[in-house]
Amino acid sequence: MSKRPWDGIISEEEQRAYRAAGFGRSGGIGTRPALLIIDVQYRTVGTRPMPFWEAIREFPTSCGETAWAAVGHMVPLLAQFRQKGWPVLYPHVAPKVATEGGRLAAKVPAIMNIAANGYDFVAEVAPREGDVLIPKKHPSAFFATPLVSHLIDLGVDTLVVAGCSTSGCVRGTVVDAFAYNFRVLVAEDAVYDRSVVSHAVNLFDMSEKYADVAPSADIIARLATIGAPAQSTGA
Amino acid sequence: MSKRPWDGIISEEEQRAYRAAGFGRSGGIGTRPALLIIDVQYRTVGTRPMPFWEAIREFPTSCGETAWAAVGHMVPLLAQFRQKGWPVLYPHVAPKVATEGGRLAAKVPAIMNIAANGYDFVAEVAPREGDVLIPKKHPSAFFATPLVSHLIDLGVDTLVVAGCSTSGCVRGTVVDAFAYNFRVLVAEDAVYDRSVVSHAVNLFDMSEKYADVAPSADIIARLATIGAPAQSTGA
Amino acid sequence: MSKRPWDGIISEEEQRAYRAAGFGRSGGIGTRPALLIIDVQYRTVGTRPMPFWEAIREFPTSCGETAWAAVGHMVPLLAQFRQKGWPVLYPHVAPKVATEGGRLAAKVPAIMNIAANGYDFVAEVAPREGDVLIPKKHPSAFFATPLVSHLIDLGVDTLVVAGCSTSGCVRGTVVDAFAYNFRVLVAEDAVYDRSVVSHAVNLFDMSEKYADVAPSADIIARLATIGAPAQSTGA
Amino acid sequence: MSKRPWDGIISEEEQRAYRAAGFGRSGGIGTRPALLIIDVQYRTVGTRPMPFWEAIREFPTSCGETAWAAVGHMVPLLAQFRQKGWPVLYPHVAPKVATEGGRLAAKVPAIMNIAANGYDFVAEVAPREGDVLIPKKHPSAFFATPLVSHLIDLGVDTLVVAGCSTSGCVRGTVVDAFAYNFRVLVAEDAVYDRSVVSHAVNLFDMSEKYADVAPSADIIARLATIGAPAQSTGA
Repeated sequence: MSKRPWDGIISEEEQRAYRAAGFGRSGGIGTRPALLIIDVQYRTVGTRPMPFWEAIREFPTSCGETAWAAVGHMVPLLAQFRQKGWPVLYPHVAPKVATEGGRLAAKVPAIMNIAANGYDFVAEVAPREGDVLIPKKHPSAFFATPLVSHLIDLGVDTLVVAGCSTSGCVRGTVVDAFAYNFRVLVAEDAVYDRSVVSHAVNLFDMSEKYADVAPSADIIARLATIGAPAQSTGA
Repeated sequence: MSKRPWDGIISEEEQRAYRAAGFGRSGGIGTRPALLIIDVQYRTVGTRPMPFWEAIREFPTSCGETAWAAVGHMVPLLAQFRQKGWPVLYPHVAPKVATEGGRLAAKVPAIMNIAANGYDFVAEVAPREGDVLIPKKHPSAFFATPLVSHLIDLGVDTLVVAGCSTSGCVRGTVVDAFAYNFRVLVAEDAVYDRSVVSHAVNLFDMSEKYADVAPSADIIARLATIGAPAQSTGA
Repeated sequence: MSKRPWDGIISEEEQRAYRAAGFGRSGGIGTRPALLIIDVQYRTVGTRPMPFWEAIREFPTSCGETAWAAVGHMVPLLAQFRQKGWPVLYPHVAPKVATEGGRLAAKVPAIMNIAANGYDFVAEVAPREGDVLIPKKHPSAFFATPLVSHLIDLGVDTLVVAGCSTSGCVRGTVVDAFAYNFRVLVAEDAVYDRSVVSHAVNLFDMSEKYADVAPSADIIARLATIGAPAQSTGA
Repeated sequence: MSKRPWDGIISEEEQRAYRAAGFGRSGGIGTRPALLIIDVQYRTVGTRPMPFWEAIREFPTSCGETAWAAVGHMVPLLAQFRQKGWPVLYPHVAPKVATEGGRLAAKVPAIMNIAANGYDFVAEVAPREGDVLIPKKHPSAFFATPLVSHLIDLGVDTLVVAGCSTSGCVRGTVVDAFAYNFRVLVAEDAVYDRSVVSHAVNLFDMSEKYADVAPSADIIARLATIGAPAQSTGA
């Protein structure tokens, strides 16, 4: 592959160290993919593209313009899934209630007070009837949710991941998806974060250990090689 | 706090962005701590301190001298837990068998062929009778293991985390511990990794979102304020 | 103990067999109890006490008069928890949406079409502000829910279980609670089922292997021996 | 279906009640089955067929002659899976160590002291190279084990369950398998228990709510209709 998002941040020597230790091979793809669009709600992108420092005045959890660029890359990916009839699932954050604080309320108290419209899905890539909505309260979309039960019911073997934040819910979800033995593809230009460095390093970590990380155009090309639409597992 | 491990890697502006968004408050500590020593086996440190490039010739998963420095910081932390009678648990990697490959064998095939002595615990901080051993097959020490059942049985409310790798099993375990609502303290000088940058950025991510990250000496001082030894939850 | 709910259903010889094999000892109680009131919604009791065959014409999932008798036994148990300030949690069934069918829709299709008022909590033992609501989609209240995270946050070590059905969600929840190492008390007269025999045998199974099963009055007396209200685990 | 194992134990009226409420439809089968042989170790059957009261003098957890009859029914089922090349997995109990007691040691203390040969697999249906061994510590074979990760890696959609005890680990595993959205078939003559009544009622419960329960010969006939061997999910 040519230039990677972490080049210049992870040194060449460190990249060689991972090569020497045997990390970073491809996990391959299966034949029944599903798309996870994680937390793409106005609370993480803002109601319109704005520079980061302006965006966080609207929602403290907003990632600003970089988020909208990622949404743009989700559009053709989602279109491919729609066209093929492959499943699309939307792990997302539901509005917080007072008894749900736990450790999150301690670490990031601002998260407990987001305006209601912040929880709406971003229109450009919003769910439509038949999609699976997965409300979640923790970083991983698998933790304390029925996500894995849905994926088993759908007969999915490969997950394509888009959304945010790269260093938070995307990373947590990818680690669990790997542990469940799904093949995982992360669309590096369709995930976003509030930190450029943390975004890049988390892509590097995932690429070395848990997932195949690639531009969305490459993922679309790779998925196009799958023969038939995903089938129900039923008899 | 004074200098942080990620200063110079995460820019000042990005750090200010997290402050402005409300991340990174302290999660506090409870009254019944347990210590997790994760994957501190010769396969991750080498049989003696060696430079990284020499160390990976012994075990491809070795982190070299930096790992031994971290072991040195674990010693007084472990001594405090021994002296107080607090629980110590050892999530660790058991030797791989052929049917267990799954996605791991695809991403990091070298991991399937480590010499048997690589799985021994490092003597300086090895388990003793009464400690809980948690063999694991996935990054998080909670995934597909009885770790949470043990912690509930022990009445633990706070986890102190040491071991490796910062960007792999430590990070995965901390994210899950946070989701389970344990208070989490990461000893920044007692966790180690093969990448300096990834180590620092993962400490930053955990500090902003999931855990209190501090030098082991600070953690020892903080734990010393807890009055009594942890008690069994039983009647 | 005097007469048990399963006497006359499980033969004396079989009961002796369990004694001889060493089953059925007491699991004891801890010091920080929580009450789980499972699925006590009009869909399982009917809008008023009715004989079973009449009740299922209102809601096919109704258990009829026997359910209302159990609700009567929950009232003093709940009052004790209110008075002591101990946590009360309400695992319950949320209205079904079409994409959530999975295996349940295949085994019990009638469950997919319950009228909306069937999902309301039964007023006599309904939640109040500050209680934790746990919507669930599977038999066990722990499966794919944040229940265990809440219990860890609350520092709970003992669960008292009421609700329905004895052979379904109560049983599934108790098996998981046992596996998580909580001490479990089942209030035998405050759980209910559509089958007298299955109710009794499931109480027997739980008593022998997973929980202490006793009349609610006995449980109230036992809990009254706990000194102080449950405390938050925080520092 | 003709006579069911629970006829005469669950009354006709109660069976009609479940029919009226809409329970007990077939869950169907998929195309990629796996066989779970649960806890078929000498500790649950005895080293040879013996009457129950004699058998428990050898191992308190033994179920006696009825267990050996079930083993006999497993043999042709296992032969079908071997012939088709379908996956076979062995959830089983590993020898207990002192720190693992938890609630189990309280409820069934005899379980902590079983002779080592009791943990050997029963030769007639023992695992062979390539089978997946799943050591477990809790009733459900899914709880705190990588079972679901293995099933996802194998692309399994249907589980056939044999072993013991019907009211313990079989029941717990079936409830979780249902929640994960696997199709579940319980071989009623290839599962066993120490209580005749509890065995029958648990079969009834599973049949009404979670699984298709049938004689092993019927299951073999049904599986024979599946066209091709299960395939790896890989690309």
